[in-house]
Amino acid sequence: MNEQQVLARVAEVIESRKPANGGDPAGSYVAKLFDKGLDAILKKVGEEATELVMAAKDGDARKLTYEVADLWFHSMIALAAFDLKPADVLAELARREGLSGLQEFAQRPHN
Amino acid sequence: MNEQQVLARVAEVIESRKPANGGDPAGSYVAKLFDKGLDAILKKVGEEATELVMAAKDGDARKLTYEVADLWFHSMIALAAFDLKPADVLAELARREGLSGLQEFAQRPHN
Amino acid sequence: MNEQQVLARVAEVIESRKPANGGDPAGSYVAKLFDKGLDAILKKVGEEATELVMAAKDGDARKLTYEVADLWFHSMIALAAFDLKPADVLAELARREGLSGLQEFAQRPHN
Amino acid sequence: MNEQQVLARVAEVIESRKPANGGDPAGSYVAKLFDKGLDAILKKVGEEATELVMAAKDGDARKLTYEVADLWFHSMIALAAFDLKPADVLAELARREGLSGLQEFAQRPHN
Repeated sequence: MNEQQVLARVAEVIESRKPANGGDPAGSYVAKLFDKGLDAILKKVGEEATELVMAAKDGDARKLTYEVADLWFHSMIALAAFDLKPADVLAELARREGLSGLQEFAQRPHN
Repeated sequence: MNEQQVLARVAEVIESRKPANGGDPAGSYVAKLFDKGLDAILKKVGEEATELVMAAKDGDARKLTYEVADLWFHSMIALAAFDLKPADVLAELARREGLSGLQEFAQRPHN
Repeated sequence: MNEQQVLARVAEVIESRKPANGGDPAGSYVAKLFDKGLDAILKKVGEEATELVMAAKDGDARKLTYEVADLWFHSMIALAAFDLKPADVLAELARREGLSGLQEFAQRPHN
Repeated sequence: MNEQQVLARVAEVIESRKPANGGDPAGSYVAKLFDKGLDAILKKVGEEATELVMAAKDGDARKLTYEVADLWFHSMIALAAFDLKPADVLAELARREGLSGLQEFAQRPHN
């Protein structure tokens, strides 16, 4: 499984945790966040950004990796709340970096 | 070019902007951030997290996608300051999601 | 001049910088923030919170004092955008700390 | 009790919650934060800044007041971790606003 598949797979798991998709707030952290609503998700994004900053200031590469993972994970929950996917973010990154040959990719439907 | 390649390619561009790699603070936004130092990079992470929150509160999916891209981009600059790669973050995400068959991936050297 | 007067005086200065009150975006930092709108103000709040965190992680008491001042200052600009005053915040702090005799204060009109 | 006294009184309460001053992490929220350490305090600062932003985006003046109070309160806990006081922040605000007659105040010892 390559990295593309990791993000897509994590997004799938997040999607499956939406209460509308059968996610159970009592048994799933992500389902509980969706159940609490957008503010709870965004509060976590702010919190994880702060933890990323602290890990970097500690000069702790292992913890920084962990906190960036946390931040990206909660970003993906925010995306999912708007029915967006990591692929949309990657397409935007590709677009603005002006990577040759990616215009086409960015405009293709993806999920 | 698939999504894995997007993150890897963006990380390559970031890496090439380090002053030690010839990045020119006068001509490159990323080189200027590296030149200013870690605090300047982390300040941008905090700022982009706030912008993500505001875009989500606006209910603006297009802007949210843009702000998540900004946040991930600046996270990757923070990673690069510690010689880390997006692949390290993806490996951590894979590890914690308990995706089968990924233990091996997470322990492989990657760049 | 005591501390109460400092917050009240700072709030007065901020109020005078609103474009509606004659504040000039070309000549005043605060007027420029009001002119840019709420998101620009809130972005600064997020940025200053991040700088506070970094100053504390640096163990730099002088810088921490400076960053808390910056954060409170920009919080007061956000308050002013809603025609609120520092006194409203102090009343809330008093209320929740259950300070005796402050119930009355908290309910008095203040500006 | 005027507003100056509110901040000073809140700072006193915070100071008394330090474990070294007899604060009990089992019975006091502030004592528990001190016990957890600086990162736990700073994480709350980041979280409260995010909540301030969300309240402002909701256009909810009552909630904004509440969140600014939360942010200032947790800022004061961070100050206390460095044996600083709200008066230090107010002196800095006075200094930078160039309020006449405040130079003297800013240089006076205060607690």
